[in-house]
Amino acid sequence: MSLPPAIILVRPQLSENIGTTARAMMNCALTDLRLVAPRENWLSERAVAAASGAEKILEAAQRFETTEDAIADLQKVYATTGRNRFMVKPVVTPKQAALEIRNHHSTGIKTAVMFGPERTGLENDDVALADTVITVPLNPEHFSLNLAQCVLLIGYEWFQAGDPAEPVSMTKGATPPASKEDLIGFFRHLEDELDACGFFRVAEKRPGMVRNIRNLFERADLTQQEIRTLHGIVHELVTYRRKKGGEQEPSE
Amino acid sequence: MSLPPAIILVRPQLSENIGTTARAMMNCALTDLRLVAPRENWLSERAVAAASGAEKILEAAQRFETTEDAIADLQKVYATTGRNRFMVKPVVTPKQAALEIRNHHSTGIKTAVMFGPERTGLENDDVALADTVITVPLNPEHFSLNLAQCVLLIGYEWFQAGDPAEPVSMTKGATPPASKEDLIGFFRHLEDELDACGFFRVAEKRPGMVRNIRNLFERADLTQQEIRTLHGIVHELVTYRRKKGGEQEPSE
Repeated sequence: MSLPPAIILVRPQLSENIGTTARAMMNCALTDLRLVAPRENWLSERAVAAASGAEKILEAAQRFETTEDAIADLQKVYATTGRNRFMVKPVVTPKQAALEIRNHHSTGIKTAVMFGPERTGLENDDVALADTVITVPLNPEHFSLNLAQCVLLIGYEWFQAGDPAEPVSMTKGATPPASKEDLIGFFRHLEDELDACGFFRVAEKRPGMVRNIRNLFERADLTQQEIRTLHGIVHELVTYRRKKGGEQEPSE
Repeated sequence: MSLPPAIILVRPQLSENIGTTARAMMNCALTDLRLVAPRENWLSERAVAAASGAEKILEAAQRFETTEDAIADLQKVYATTGRNRFMVKPVVTPKQAALEIRNHHSTGIKTAVMFGPERTGLENDDVALADTVITVPLNPEHFSLNLAQCVLLIGYEWFQAGDPAEPVSMTKGATPPASKEDLIGFFRHLEDELDACGFFRVAEKRPGMVRNIRNLFERADLTQQEIRTLHGIVHELVTYRRKKGGEQEPSE
């Protein structure tokens, strides 16, 4: 069976919900649990009781300070959202995501599904780090799934999907897809240079502009080679401007 | 949209689980909740809190003394089981059941899905009253869904299935399928006569034999007309036997 996707809980509030998530994961043969800045101890008595036999998933869970750290070694990340975020990003159902994840793993691509805090869901900055958004198509007039139920539906579809009959071949030539670490490294490089040259003139607009730029590159499905190319482009543009004594403005 | 299936909780133990079931149902636009001999009050404070906005489903829930009463007005009943009951009965996945239920409703057939008590699941006598068994295909090495999660997966598949493009036509000629009340009425008639003639010679074997006979007729997908015919057959056989002064044994 192909490697299951990692389950990433971003800033979960209650340790009990981490426990019920582990229980839901175990039903679906998911094992890789990652926690971004959890508020409570995920090995608390309440968490272990709620895990109901799945405590080995809790014990193996990894803690990260930021979402960026949690996804660094992965190549495709899905964000679950309950409402439309109006980002230009593919939106799929759990079933479609499950098929994609199976295909990714069959070609060696590591994936994860992210879930936000219990009441508020993922922040837009977290969603901007994902390749694809998952929304669960249920009763639009009363949508009220808890964290573990949401994980269960994703895991259930992943379990049902089974391995693809034949690995879907890569369509991107020889170089493998960029890891999130590569991509975030490029974001940092680009944003630092954009800060340096005064691209973000209005401070309040910076977060939204950064998200839009990140989303644009997330969508491009970049390879490792392409990331190197983009670093080179930014570097060359900056060097050229500096040679000209700062007269050259960056094109928008 | 076609009528959703009824959700029948047989002897649920904790009112909180009835509440979380109502919440799961509301997500899937399911509304008809039926309770067979619940141990606790399903309008308790804990139940309403757990329903988390779905209390109108709790308020509209119907209570029944027996499973037979709860299914009397229905025509197709599915039983969820976590383990194999070794009954000769079709076993389907939630996805397959969802498609069947959509098809049934499009031809006016009323359905339900039954769930057993939290720890023990449905008793064999309840399963014997169902047409079809549903098992959820998840990790066989660690299967541990709670009641509301199990209801959620069934409801989720029902919601996803959508209405069939074209109603599947009845294949049974003109008369509609028998209701469970009709069928149970025939079971009672037959079993009374079998008791009267001494068919059940060994008392301990009676329950298993009754279940086997019920399963056999459940599988036959009987119409109302066929139920009348079967009543007639039993009546005639008994009358003939009595005329003969008890010498005629019923054929097995």
